[in-house]
Amino acid sequence: MNSVSSNRTVGRPRSEATRLAILDAAADLALSEGCVPTVDAVAQAAGVSRTTIYKWWPSTAAVLAEGLLERFHESIEFSDDLPVREALTLQVDALVTLLRDTPAGALLRQLLAASASAPALGQELLARWLGPRRERAVHHLERGIAAGEVRADVDLELVVDALFAPVYHRLVWGHAPLDAGLARQVADLVWPAISHPFPPRRRSA
Amino acid sequence: MNSVSSNRTVGRPRSEATRLAILDAAADLALSEGCVPTVDAVAQAAGVSRTTIYKWWPSTAAVLAEGLLERFHESIEFSDDLPVREALTLQVDALVTLLRDTPAGALLRQLLAASASAPALGQELLARWLGPRRERAVHHLERGIAAGEVRADVDLELVVDALFAPVYHRLVWGHAPLDAGLARQVADLVWPAISHPFPPRRRSA
Repeated sequence: MNSVSSNRTVGRPRSEATRLAILDAAADLALSEGCVPTVDAVAQAAGVSRTTIYKWWPSTAAVLAEGLLERFHESIEFSDDLPVREALTLQVDALVTLLRDTPAGALLRQLLAASASAPALGQELLARWLGPRRERAVHHLERGIAAGEVRADVDLELVVDALFAPVYHRLVWGHAPLDAGLARQVADLVWPAISHPFPPRRRSA
Repeated sequence: MNSVSSNRTVGRPRSEATRLAILDAAADLALSEGCVPTVDAVAQAAGVSRTTIYKWWPSTAAVLAEGLLERFHESIEFSDDLPVREALTLQVDALVTLLRDTPAGALLRQLLAASASAPALGQELLARWLGPRRERAVHHLERGIAAGEVRADVDLELVVDALFAPVYHRLVWGHAPLDAGLARQVADLVWPAISHPFPPRRRSA
C-alpha cells in the first residue's frame, strides 16, 4: 500500500506527468461518481493502460490515497508561540475548513470507506493522515502541561479524540454540518476538564 | 432502502425462515470476508436465488442493514430515575460494549463504508441507528437542564457529538481501543463544561 517513490529503480521510471494525470483522473471520478472508481475508468480517463496503473499501485483506492495525501493539506503546524488552546483550536478549525471547503472531505470519506475492507489502506491513512495530526495536537497539550496550563493527569489520546472526533463523526455520518464555529465550540467544551485549576503562569503566557 | 415490512402485499409474502436465512448469510459473509458480500455469495450461502434477494432488498448492504438494525441492540433506554450523568455514561458504555463485543461493530463499519456511495443507506442508518440514540441522549440532557443540573445554554447537538463521537471515531479509524473505561472518561471530560455551576438541587436528585 505504500506509494511508490519516484526513485524506484525496478522497471521504467514512471513519468511524473503520467502519474499526475492518473491521480487527477482518479480524484475527478471519485468526486463525480461518489465512489472509488474502477481501474478501467481511471485508465480510460487518464489515457493510460490498466497495466500502467497496476504497475505502480495495488488499487485505485491507493491512487486516491496518494492524491489526497500529497495534494490536500491543512496547516497542522501552528506556532509554539501561540497559547496552547489557541493553537489547538486553529488546528481543529483548519481541519473543518479543509474537509468542508475542498474535495478532501469527500475523498477522505471514500478512502475511509475503502479502508473498511482494505487493512493496508487503513494503516496508510493512520500513518500518513491521522497520526501526524494527532502528534501535533499531543505536542501542544504537552507544552500546556509543561507550562502548568493543562492538567498533568489528562489522557492525551482521549483529549485528542474529544477535539477531533466530532469533526470526523460529522463527515462520516452527515448528521450535522461542519460549522464555522465548530472548532471553537469543541475547544470550549474540552477546556474546563483539562485546564489546570491553578495555573502558575498567566493563560496568555 | 426502507426494509420491506412483513405485511407487504405486493408479490408473495416472503417466508420468515427464508428472510432470516438471508440475513444470517449476509452477516456471516460480511464478518468472514471483511466486506459487503455480493448478491451471488449471499444467494448461494442462503440457498436462495438472486431473484429472491432482489425481490426484497435493493442491495446486500440493505440486507446487512436490516440484520444489524433488527438483531443488535444495546440498551439506550436508561431510566429517568437515574442521575443524568449516570444515564448518559451508561448509554455511551452500552454502545462501547456492543461495538466491541458483538459483530455489530464490524457490521456497522461495513455499512458506514457502503453508505459513502449509497446515500439512501446513509439515510437509513441515520434514521434508524444514530437518530434514536441521539434523541435518547438529548432527552437526558434536557431533563438535566430542567433540573438545573445542566447549563441551559449548551449546544445539545455538540454535547451529544462529544459524548459519542470518540466511540465511532475509534471504530472507524482503529487508532485506539474501545476501552472498558472509555464511557466514564468521556463523561468526565464533557461534564465540567456542561454542568450548571450552581445547581438548585443536589446532583443525586
